[in-house]
Amino acid sequence: MKLPLEGLTVLEFSQYMAGPYAGLRLADLGARVIKVERPILGDACRSLVTKNMKVGDDSVLFHTVNRNKESFQANLKDPDDVEVIKRLLPKVDVITHNFRPGIIERLGLDFDTVSQINPQLIYAQISGYGDSGPWKRKPGQDLLAQSMSGLTWLSGNKDDDPIPFGAAVADMVCGSNMVQAILAALLRRRKTGQGAKVDVSLMESILDFQFEGLTAYLNDDSNPSNELPTRSETASAHAYLGAPYGIYPTQNGYIALAMGSIETLSKLLGLNELADYSSNNRYYLDRDSAKSVIAKHLVTQTTEHWIAKLEAGEYWCSDVLTYNQLVETDGYKSLEMEMTITRHDEISLVTTRCPIRLNGNKIYHPKAAPILGDHTTNIKQEFNL
Amino acid sequence: MKLPLEGLTVLEFSQYMAGPYAGLRLADLGARVIKVERPILGDACRSLVTKNMKVGDDSVLFHTVNRNKESFQANLKDPDDVEVIKRLLPKVDVITHNFRPGIIERLGLDFDTVSQINPQLIYAQISGYGDSGPWKRKPGQDLLAQSMSGLTWLSGNKDDDPIPFGAAVADMVCGSNMVQAILAALLRRRKTGQGAKVDVSLMESILDFQFEGLTAYLNDDSNPSNELPTRSETASAHAYLGAPYGIYPTQNGYIALAMGSIETLSKLLGLNELADYSSNNRYYLDRDSAKSVIAKHLVTQTTEHWIAKLEAGEYWCSDVLTYNQLVETDGYKSLEMEMTITRHDEISLVTTRCPIRLNGNKIYHPKAAPILGDHTTNIKQEFNL
Repeated sequence: MKLPLEGLTVLEFSQYMAGPYAGLRLADLGARVIKVERPILGDACRSLVTKNMKVGDDSVLFHTVNRNKESFQANLKDPDDVEVIKRLLPKVDVITHNFRPGIIERLGLDFDTVSQINPQLIYAQISGYGDSGPWKRKPGQDLLAQSMSGLTWLSGNKDDDPIPFGAAVADMVCGSNMVQAILAALLRRRKTGQGAKVDVSLMESILDFQFEGLTAYLNDDSNPSNELPTRSETASAHAYLGAPYGIYPTQNGYIALAMGSIETLSKLLGLNELADYSSNNRYYLDRDSAKSVIAKHLVTQTTEHWIAKLEAGEYWCSDVLTYNQLVETDGYKSLEMEMTITRHDEISLVTTRCPIRLNGNKIYHPKAAPILGDHTTNIKQEFNL
Repeated sequence: MKLPLEGLTVLEFSQYMAGPYAGLRLADLGARVIKVERPILGDACRSLVTKNMKVGDDSVLFHTVNRNKESFQANLKDPDDVEVIKRLLPKVDVITHNFRPGIIERLGLDFDTVSQINPQLIYAQISGYGDSGPWKRKPGQDLLAQSMSGLTWLSGNKDDDPIPFGAAVADMVCGSNMVQAILAALLRRRKTGQGAKVDVSLMESILDFQFEGLTAYLNDDSNPSNELPTRSETASAHAYLGAPYGIYPTQNGYIALAMGSIETLSKLLGLNELADYSSNNRYYLDRDSAKSVIAKHLVTQTTEHWIAKLEAGEYWCSDVLTYNQLVETDGYKSLEMEMTITRHDEISLVTTRCPIRLNGNKIYHPKAAPILGDHTTNIKQEFNL
């Protein structure tokens, strides 16, 4: 299958998660992605071990984010290496970096310099909080961006402390936005021949991610003290949605209930008490009370029991799975999300594929993340550097 | 400013969140996005009220996701209206839909039919779980996809029940993936003249979103029973990261601590007991114990006290803000994320802008979501339908 970005070359100066996640998607869609890495340590993510897990010399995390890429070693503090990079620049289409504001100018690879060398280049920058304003020097890190953005007050129940999302959500939505920005700028270039600078930041991205909650907050006349978002007392899953929206314990596990008619739900569950809440939007106004009625009832029977009853009445619900349970389901298996990636030094691991399908085809790439500098010599020869 | 997608036209048959979020981004980047909506009710999201909030006849949620678009009314169950749509198809570049598998064929707007009418069209489909396999008829809904995917076991502490992310994360990452898929397919079309079908689903997207956790899970030889992910007992923020990563209560609020040297942290906090954990990756292996030592210490002083000490030593940390606090900060204000959107019938609300910057410019669009069918007559005239 010919992939849509074949023929495009990306130089990835980005480290850690957000930029490399963008690079991974570009690579999965067909671009050639060359990581430019410093000697000895390389991308800092190589040594960011999660649960002490490594494959070869590098963390599993690094392998996850950097498969299907090449590695070119360069010391950007050495003017000779910077010259090599500058000779490479006219031959690439995109560069990405996440140096802190100010650093890239010192290295001589800022947009003004680089766009004189290659006016058609798409120059993509990631920062924590943009390149101006009082936060510009703050470390651009996922948990801190979550914490500053208000996000940690959206999950969990009313009396819980702030609960961060247990995944690098700011990094990932930011990387994803960068892919969009790069592709849009490439489309414009195909039409006009112009390069572009595109900027994304963790904070702007995680605020956009909360556009639903923030817009509700900013327009809530009913609440002059603006104390939103308010999580429900139990089974909270969304601060702005009414009962029954949430996850409830059952006799042997849990069940997730989406929004739907309280009347229908009350009939299907055989829970007459719940029907009282169906009028006048009481399902939002009295959601704590409604949810507590539901919770008391659901805990008396198994998950399977309730799902059978609710699915028969087409009420939207589901089981709540752990990874162990998930990977054993036929549904998960039929998605064929897993693939094995390998490298010439015989390392091998299992990871997930690109989530996009093209003309009905799933996209697989068997190539594991590169050894630091593994492609330096070949790239120098190929581009006559 | 000339936006990168100017000149492109998108027909949005998608409803609710994932597809319309994609359409919003395409519109913000310059595309013309026309919602095709059924009579009377329109996009189901118009009546999906969160916290009973409406502006005009529509929910605040609908307004948030559908600003900067046009609305064309058509009854896809009426063959005459389907013919009108078919006359429009040769004149557009992209269509998106999230009909359940099978429905679009019945409407006569499946890929095979549509691509014969316009072979250059990019046809983008969203489903809950793909178009085959045992889950294909499951309702494609955010909380249910979260619950099935294992995601709800990533947030919160060890003994907590499953905790969903308090935002429509599956919808949003799925919509974001669809934007990428559409733009990549458009790039290919500029080169080859070919249209394409692209598919995304809530489940594949929310699994990709967990690629870090899933890859760790799938390669964890140290844990033969594969009981990962394990959240820490307190201050859990990431199942695979060691101490101190998390949010801790202080005397007057909270503080978020990113990963970093335990030795440095112990010095800056004046907490000698913590230094014992610095060797041999004990910060992961003994993270519950290390975190409890940190928690006991941090609660004795204010957030400001600790942030001053840690920032002086360049340890990455931050305050933990609510929306009330966030919107009062100079940092937030300087990002200029808010904009007011209005409509000819004088409705007006405040929402957030596109998180991508182009050539240093923030992107604002003042146009609120359309009244149902507001552009039908004009579009019929314009395209001679």
